[in-house]
Amino acid sequence: MPFKKIILPEKDIPKKWYNLAADLPAPFHPPLGPDGNALKPEMLSRIFPMNIIEQEVSSKRWIDIPPQVLKMLMLWRPAPLRRALALEEYLKTPARIYYKDESVSPAGSHKPNSAVAQAWYNKQFGIKRLTTETGAGQWGSALAFACSLIGLECKVYMVRISFDQKPMRKTMMQIWGARCVASPSRDTCAGRETLKKMPNTPGSLGIAISEAVEDALSDKSGKTRYTLGSVLNHVLLHQTIIGLEARKQLKIAGEKKPDVVIGCAGGGSNFAGLSFPFIRDKIYGEKIEIIPVEPTACPTLTKGPFTYDFGDTAGLTPLLAMYTLGHGFVPEPIHAGGLRYHGMAPLVSMAAAKGLVSPRSYDQVKCYESAMLWARTEGTICAPETSHAIACAIDEARKAKREGRRKVILFCYSGHGLMDLAGYDKFLSGRLAKYKLPGYKLRKSLESIKDLPKIKNR
Amino acid sequence: MPFKKIILPEKDIPKKWYNLAADLPAPFHPPLGPDGNALKPEMLSRIFPMNIIEQEVSSKRWIDIPPQVLKMLMLWRPAPLRRALALEEYLKTPARIYYKDESVSPAGSHKPNSAVAQAWYNKQFGIKRLTTETGAGQWGSALAFACSLIGLECKVYMVRISFDQKPMRKTMMQIWGARCVASPSRDTCAGRETLKKMPNTPGSLGIAISEAVEDALSDKSGKTRYTLGSVLNHVLLHQTIIGLEARKQLKIAGEKKPDVVIGCAGGGSNFAGLSFPFIRDKIYGEKIEIIPVEPTACPTLTKGPFTYDFGDTAGLTPLLAMYTLGHGFVPEPIHAGGLRYHGMAPLVSMAAAKGLVSPRSYDQVKCYESAMLWARTEGTICAPETSHAIACAIDEARKAKREGRRKVILFCYSGHGLMDLAGYDKFLSGRLAKYKLPGYKLRKSLESIKDLPKIKNR
Repeated sequence: MPFKKIILPEKDIPKKWYNLAADLPAPFHPPLGPDGNALKPEMLSRIFPMNIIEQEVSSKRWIDIPPQVLKMLMLWRPAPLRRALALEEYLKTPARIYYKDESVSPAGSHKPNSAVAQAWYNKQFGIKRLTTETGAGQWGSALAFACSLIGLECKVYMVRISFDQKPMRKTMMQIWGARCVASPSRDTCAGRETLKKMPNTPGSLGIAISEAVEDALSDKSGKTRYTLGSVLNHVLLHQTIIGLEARKQLKIAGEKKPDVVIGCAGGGSNFAGLSFPFIRDKIYGEKIEIIPVEPTACPTLTKGPFTYDFGDTAGLTPLLAMYTLGHGFVPEPIHAGGLRYHGMAPLVSMAAAKGLVSPRSYDQVKCYESAMLWARTEGTICAPETSHAIACAIDEARKAKREGRRKVILFCYSGHGLMDLAGYDKFLSGRLAKYKLPGYKLRKSLESIKDLPKIKNR
Repeated sequence: MPFKKIILPEKDIPKKWYNLAADLPAPFHPPLGPDGNALKPEMLSRIFPMNIIEQEVSSKRWIDIPPQVLKMLMLWRPAPLRRALALEEYLKTPARIYYKDESVSPAGSHKPNSAVAQAWYNKQFGIKRLTTETGAGQWGSALAFACSLIGLECKVYMVRISFDQKPMRKTMMQIWGARCVASPSRDTCAGRETLKKMPNTPGSLGIAISEAVEDALSDKSGKTRYTLGSVLNHVLLHQTIIGLEARKQLKIAGEKKPDVVIGCAGGGSNFAGLSFPFIRDKIYGEKIEIIPVEPTACPTLTKGPFTYDFGDTAGLTPLLAMYTLGHGFVPEPIHAGGLRYHGMAPLVSMAAAKGLVSPRSYDQVKCYESAMLWARTEGTICAPETSHAIACAIDEARKAKREGRRKVILFCYSGHGLMDLAGYDKFLSGRLAKYKLPGYKLRKSLESIKDLPKIKNR
């Protein structure tokens, strides 16, 4: 079987990030404060440094990547664009399948693209210490890695159940010098309160966010800030280097444009990273189908309403305009931990509301079947999140075969699965369950948002 | 911190492997059969296919890499050569430290370089199924990966203690379609006999080799063969693509030659892969210091005699002329499982006997300290085996600083450590032990070889 990779020369690495907010065909719905009024940037300044907040609210189309950030990204970037020739051959499809390989970063996923940038901006602003939460562990590892390179302290609140199931994720973070504790922890009021009420709780992303934010706010020196690995505009912005590189690489490969662009979508960061530059092309007239893929167990874009909701379970964050299953939603324990999020990045949500993307949902058993086919043709073991994009790419390649069309399919290979082999083990031994969100559960979860503000001027 | 990588264009990938046997300043000491006479190639033909045996006994200097093998290697090759600028800066050394990054393969180490070649030659020869043994799991994973790409059945006998300690290695092999069983197993006479005598044995590489060989021999159809991941000439040959690429990349980086070349050494395959092309340069007059690094717990080259010994514990293989601690030697349970081998590849042993390389041994605690410094400067988590090469590179960089010399140091980054984080966890919690082979234990172990033939005409 032959393999083909398209390497972008280092000198051609993108020097600017792309901000989709500048091109969306409707004004951005701003986050709302606790009073229901639009949040003022200053209100976030105890949580994020002002240079990050400026990016968060910017409507500038192109934003310079600081040369120092670019130098650090060069450790693994430009990431290869690869063509899945062996899979094409197996499927006997006329489609050409390309994938952008983000698994090559030291932390094993696309997450360091934003972690390095966020750590750098915080350092520039005089911050000494960062806090964050992590579910499956990809973001926590990425931030620990970035803080190690840049010289910042790092504290990660890891959801208890993942902390216990994946002890090696903690080890990874410790190697990079971060402190990782199981959440709820005894280190914060929010953690202690929760433990008092529920001593045996498996924890949740919502509680972990509360702890990480409280930790940042309670540092009297003012030198600690909070970071987030997805959802927010600045995080998506940092990830657009994925799509900007891929766009150049497709041209090197002799392709005018992709016909289909695919990414798995949890909070939205890798999907946005790959797709936003192509959504721009679509806005300006190119014909491209753009597909965010989510799990049937957590079908935010495919089943949720587009409305204001909290970013966390406890309702501590500002209200974000997004597709949501309700902030009280607790998804089934699927292995793609990075896709178990009740909401969706506001910019991705806007693109969906405007019909620029065509969301789809897949069951995890189908995704693992696709991951197995992938490993046995293309040779690599993908993350459970990534398997959703692969499953969709395979479906699209088969469709192209039925239609006899030589489509160009591009997807984001967001991470490798070497730290998440337990799901494969379950699949191989026939113990992996299918999950689909039942309607009654969704209706019940949506009750939690019925009294929140609605989006005006859609 | 800036990072620098030197990418070899695909068109410049080496088209031939280099065979050190052609340039060694003394005749190669042939393997001996059970009768003490030189082994005839045909005697190996039930274990290996003839095309592999021809490579094993070849004294041709350059051997063509089949284009089909090259195409598969292209999935991850040419591998990057990187410069460790951040580490240099930390050490304030005038030395320039380069490392050849073999961690980028789908199995995570250099092992697939030979696994793909061996699987391909077997397939060409009409073989349908391969067997092998694996200790730490790197070789077993690599062979499973290669067999999956090429379309061969694969059965791996994994040493029981590793099988139990690293269940995810088995999962990796299964994903690629291989069958992996704990050794001793009930699948072979050798395994059953061992279990009868020692039902609770943790297993050993020696027993696993016996099982894998017996399995290959007992296939009545004649379509099964055995494979080995290190030690033998053809395995080392396949690995020389590492050094041949690195040699070209150093030139691209503007370096005339390395002053110091370093690789960790267990059976010898990654060390040989990087160093053999440079040993050739040394034979032809270049001044290069070449250092194989082994653990103090298993100091084959630094403490063992150069003599004939069996490749396995049970004494089933031909006798090989090599440095050895005695085939009955059982090393302490250090984390670098790939370096726990009593012998050393005959070609590496010859180079050592002729003074072409300068072996050194390091304790694992020092190695983990170096691995931690590496992760926090260069950003990546290395395999425990690789940490031995890093520890030596750091020592050499410090020496260059003391001497005020702008040396070029090159080492092999043989694999990543994401599947072996347990050792880091022990180190971080202060539970990692130092091991040094005591003299009385070595003397006792060497008794097992006192009646074996000696090397003539040294």
